[in-house]
Amino acid sequence: MQRYKCIVSYDGTQFAGYQVQPNKRTVQGEIEKSLAKLHKGQEVKISASGRTDAGVHARGQVFHFDSSLDIPLGKWEVALNSMLPDDVAIICVEKAERDFHARFDAQGKEYRYFISQTHIRDPFKRHFAYKYSYPINIQAINEAIPFLLGEHDFTSFCSAKSEVENKVRELSEIELLLEEEALTFRFVGNGFLYNMVRILVGTLLDVGSGEISPSDIPSILEKKDRIFAGKTAPAHGLYLWEVHY
Amino acid sequence: MQRYKCIVSYDGTQFAGYQVQPNKRTVQGEIEKSLAKLHKGQEVKISASGRTDAGVHARGQVFHFDSSLDIPLGKWEVALNSMLPDDVAIICVEKAERDFHARFDAQGKEYRYFISQTHIRDPFKRHFAYKYSYPINIQAINEAIPFLLGEHDFTSFCSAKSEVENKVRELSEIELLLEEEALTFRFVGNGFLYNMVRILVGTLLDVGSGEISPSDIPSILEKKDRIFAGKTAPAHGLYLWEVHY
Repeated sequence: MQRYKCIVSYDGTQFAGYQVQPNKRTVQGEIEKSLAKLHKGQEVKISASGRTDAGVHARGQVFHFDSSLDIPLGKWEVALNSMLPDDVAIICVEKAERDFHARFDAQGKEYRYFISQTHIRDPFKRHFAYKYSYPINIQAINEAIPFLLGEHDFTSFCSAKSEVENKVRELSEIELLLEEEALTFRFVGNGFLYNMVRILVGTLLDVGSGEISPSDIPSILEKKDRIFAGKTAPAHGLYLWEVHY
Repeated sequence: MQRYKCIVSYDGTQFAGYQVQPNKRTVQGEIEKSLAKLHKGQEVKISASGRTDAGVHARGQVFHFDSSLDIPLGKWEVALNSMLPDDVAIICVEKAERDFHARFDAQGKEYRYFISQTHIRDPFKRHFAYKYSYPINIQAINEAIPFLLGEHDFTSFCSAKSEVENKVRELSEIELLLEEEALTFRFVGNGFLYNMVRILVGTLLDVGSGEISPSDIPSILEKKDRIFAGKTAPAHGLYLWEVHY
C-alpha cells in the first residue's frame, strides 16, 4: 500500500458540498466513485484537509488515499481526470509518507473571497463572486483587520451549529486586494471554523458599510456569541485556495 | 412608440443559441418573455445585430425594440434584469432614432476567442475557454494572419450550411494576445459569416500545429470551399465582444 497526497480543484456550483451525503452530488463522492472504478470496483476512501460547503469552490483542496495500484507518477492525474466530471480536476498526485494525513498534518490554509462591485450583474461571475454593489469604506475595513489578526477565540465568527469545542484559531494574514469594480479578501490561518471566513467577510462588509465600527471588533470577539458578528456572506464567493503542510 | 438600443451580455452555456427556436431555451426567447411581462403580456419583438450559436457567449450583443412604456432611462436595465434569468444581463438601454436597426446599421463587430493551454483542465474555465494543450507555433500563426486581413471572399471559412450569397467580408484586425498558459484571438471586421470566427481559429490553430503552412492561406481562400480550411473550433471559447455602429 502506498499513500498518495492529491491536490484537487473544483467548481462548487453544482455540488452539495465536499463531504459525502446520501443521495447528494458531492466532491468526495465523485472522487471516490472514480477511484473505485480505477480499483475495479473496490472501495477507496479519501480524507481531505476539511469540508467545504455547498457552492464553495476550491483551487487547492488536499486529500490523501491509499492504493496498491501500480500507476506511474504523472499518470494518476490523467487516469482520474478521465473519469471525473469536468467540474472537478485533480491537479497533482504525489507519493506521501505512510502516516501523512491531509487534515491532521495541515499547518494552515488560505481562503479567498471574491466580491464583484459592478452595479449590473455580470453573467460570467454569477457563480464565482458575490455581487455587492453598495459603497464600501475601505479605510474602515483596513482599520478593523488588525483586531482580527493573531490568536483569538473565534466563537463569534463560527456557525452556532458547530460542534467543535476549542474555537481558538490564529489568523496570520488578512489582505484586501482592490481591483476595478472588484474586491478580494485573502485569509491565512492555522485553522478555520465552520462558516468562519464567510462570517468574517460579512462582518468586514458591515464595517465597510458603517453598520459596525472597526473598534467594535474586539468586543464582538469577547462576546463569544455568533449573534454579535455580521451576516454570513454567500458561499459562491468563497474559494479554498491552498492548504499548507 | 420609442425605439431603444440595448447592450446585452450572456453566458451562452445553457442556451440553445441566441435566436428563438420552438421548445428551446434561447437568449432572444428569454428577453422577449421579460419584455412581454413588462408590457402586461403584450408581445414585444427584439432584433439583434446577429445570431450566436449554442454555447457561444456575448459581452456586448446589441438589439433594438420599440415600446410605448414610460420607463425613465436608467430604470429599464433594472426592470428587465429583475425579470431575466441570471445568465443574461442587460448592460445598457438607450433611446435610438426611429429607424435605428441593430443588424443593418452595424458597421462592424469584434469577436474574441479564448484558449486555455493548461495541461490539466481548469474546472472554472470549462465553459469559457477552449482547452488546447498542444504546442503552438506562435510565429507561424503571426505569419498566417496578414493573409486573412483585408477584403476576401470567405466562402472557405464559412459553414457549408450558410445560405448567404455574398461571402465577401473585410477583416480589419486579427490580434493574438499571449498570456501565461492562455491565448486570446481578437477579430474585428465589417461582418462575419456563419461559423467564420470558429473556422478561422480552427485554421490558425492548424497553422500553429504545423498541419497547415502560413503560405497555404491564400490558396485556401481562393478555393472557396469549406473543406480546405481547418476544423471549426468549439463554441464555448467564443465571445461576441462588441458591435460597432
